[in-house]
Amino acid sequence: MVSKAQIVALFLYFLSSTSSATYGQKPRPRQPCNHLVFYFHDILFKGNNYNNATAAIVGSPAWGNKTAMAQPFNFGDLVVFDDPITLDNNLHSPPVGRAQGMYFYDQRSIYGAWLGFSFLFNSTKHVGTLNFAGADPLINKTRDISVIGGTGDFFMARGIATLMTDAFEGDVYFRLRVDINLYECW
Amino acid sequence: MVSKAQIVALFLYFLSSTSSATYGQKPRPRQPCNHLVFYFHDILFKGNNYNNATAAIVGSPAWGNKTAMAQPFNFGDLVVFDDPITLDNNLHSPPVGRAQGMYFYDQRSIYGAWLGFSFLFNSTKHVGTLNFAGADPLINKTRDISVIGGTGDFFMARGIATLMTDAFEGDVYFRLRVDINLYECW
Amino acid sequence: MVSKAQIVALFLYFLSSTSSATYGQKPRPRQPCNHLVFYFHDILFKGNNYNNATAAIVGSPAWGNKTAMAQPFNFGDLVVFDDPITLDNNLHSPPVGRAQGMYFYDQRSIYGAWLGFSFLFNSTKHVGTLNFAGADPLINKTRDISVIGGTGDFFMARGIATLMTDAFEGDVYFRLRVDINLYECW
Repeated sequence: MVSKAQIVALFLYFLSSTSSATYGQKPRPRQPCNHLVFYFHDILFKGNNYNNATAAIVGSPAWGNKTAMAQPFNFGDLVVFDDPITLDNNLHSPPVGRAQGMYFYDQRSIYGAWLGFSFLFNSTKHVGTLNFAGADPLINKTRDISVIGGTGDFFMARGIATLMTDAFEGDVYFRLRVDINLYECW
Repeated sequence: MVSKAQIVALFLYFLSSTSSATYGQKPRPRQPCNHLVFYFHDILFKGNNYNNATAAIVGSPAWGNKTAMAQPFNFGDLVVFDDPITLDNNLHSPPVGRAQGMYFYDQRSIYGAWLGFSFLFNSTKHVGTLNFAGADPLINKTRDISVIGGTGDFFMARGIATLMTDAFEGDVYFRLRVDINLYECW
Repeated sequence: MVSKAQIVALFLYFLSSTSSATYGQKPRPRQPCNHLVFYFHDILFKGNNYNNATAAIVGSPAWGNKTAMAQPFNFGDLVVFDDPITLDNNLHSPPVGRAQGMYFYDQRSIYGAWLGFSFLFNSTKHVGTLNFAGADPLINKTRDISVIGGTGDFFMARGIATLMTDAFEGDVYFRLRVDINLYECW
């Protein structure tokens, strides 16, 4: 048999735990509800590689231009990209989607960028988009940006994407590994 | 009368359901808490329509310029806009706010864009802003982007905005219908 | 002793309150889980101040250029910045981080901008980033933008940042006070 005191204790327990969910005031466990790994490949237009370029400078500072990176640190160069996404680190693997958006270099005394872009999937495995925004301080081995939303299979997703430069060939080619951990799944 | 076993069962039920709310691990019902429909109207500056233009190319690739779209597929053109929002599809209806932000064309082999913008309302009906980001693959009849935040009446909102091209007149004028479904309301 | 009716009432109470947390349908209390105040300082490159500039025009409309603001209302100017963050309103105070990203002027008939940027902290007090997006209608004394995500100490944060122009010296220098209220903390 159960006493009223026990019920009251139970009530208070649920009240506090429900409140934390509602108000978002208490730390929530950092356990991902989805984990995905992709690579994407960026080939910058440098004036003589139009056919295989996937990205182009569309904005540059007064001291820059659109076929070479501004010196120093590329500061002020804004690039629009349409990059293939692959499951492994091979540029020639069949793409599972496109990484489309922009990055611009926004650090004056070191290499660093800011990213606003989406992953667009239309494969047998995933249909939908993931939207990303955040800072990419390139000097760090890993950089965390925000998954700010998603659609389709990733409806209303939020999370963290960890970027790692997996290859870097001068100014023309780089490959990023992206570890996506979603913490809000619907 | 209630047995301890019944109380324990109840306890476990609440524990699991509260956990799902806290951890965001289980799918949440996709039932909107607010639904809004608007139209916005974009008139691009093409060199000879300064007075009634609402948008201007401010970035373009090496092969482009600021008074005409880059060929092919407008790739690399970045446009800043200050577009009227209306409740119906008539450009001349009284605006209920402004759609302000940017879009840029980021698909090399088809028409597609990426959007970062806000709706700014200051009407008898709505005061506040909604912030949007996401990919707009124009070839699709409907495209979903993310509502990444809001202020004022839309404090902390999140959701999905479905875009439909409602009219398209060459490169100069387009009208988008926006169906906004908010799934997080505060 | 407790009756079955009382248990059922309790059950229904929890069911409804848990549902509201899960579905996000009911208004949540607007009580911040973290509050932070910072200042950041923007010195725009105007052609002759390269060494101490923290920001540069990288995109401009057909009628603009990259060493002066476009007239009228700076419409179409896109600026990339790498600004120091300080705890007080003194430009020369030791920075606690960098505000890095972009703003562009997107209002045709008044001063207003749109912001996409991050705060990057690496101090004894904070390590991590906060990501922001939203409209900045400069005519208003205070303007609310969205905190769309965070990393490190600000893992998965969401909230509202209130901007106030704390100083404004022609086109070259401005200082913003930023009051950050986080409503989702993990």
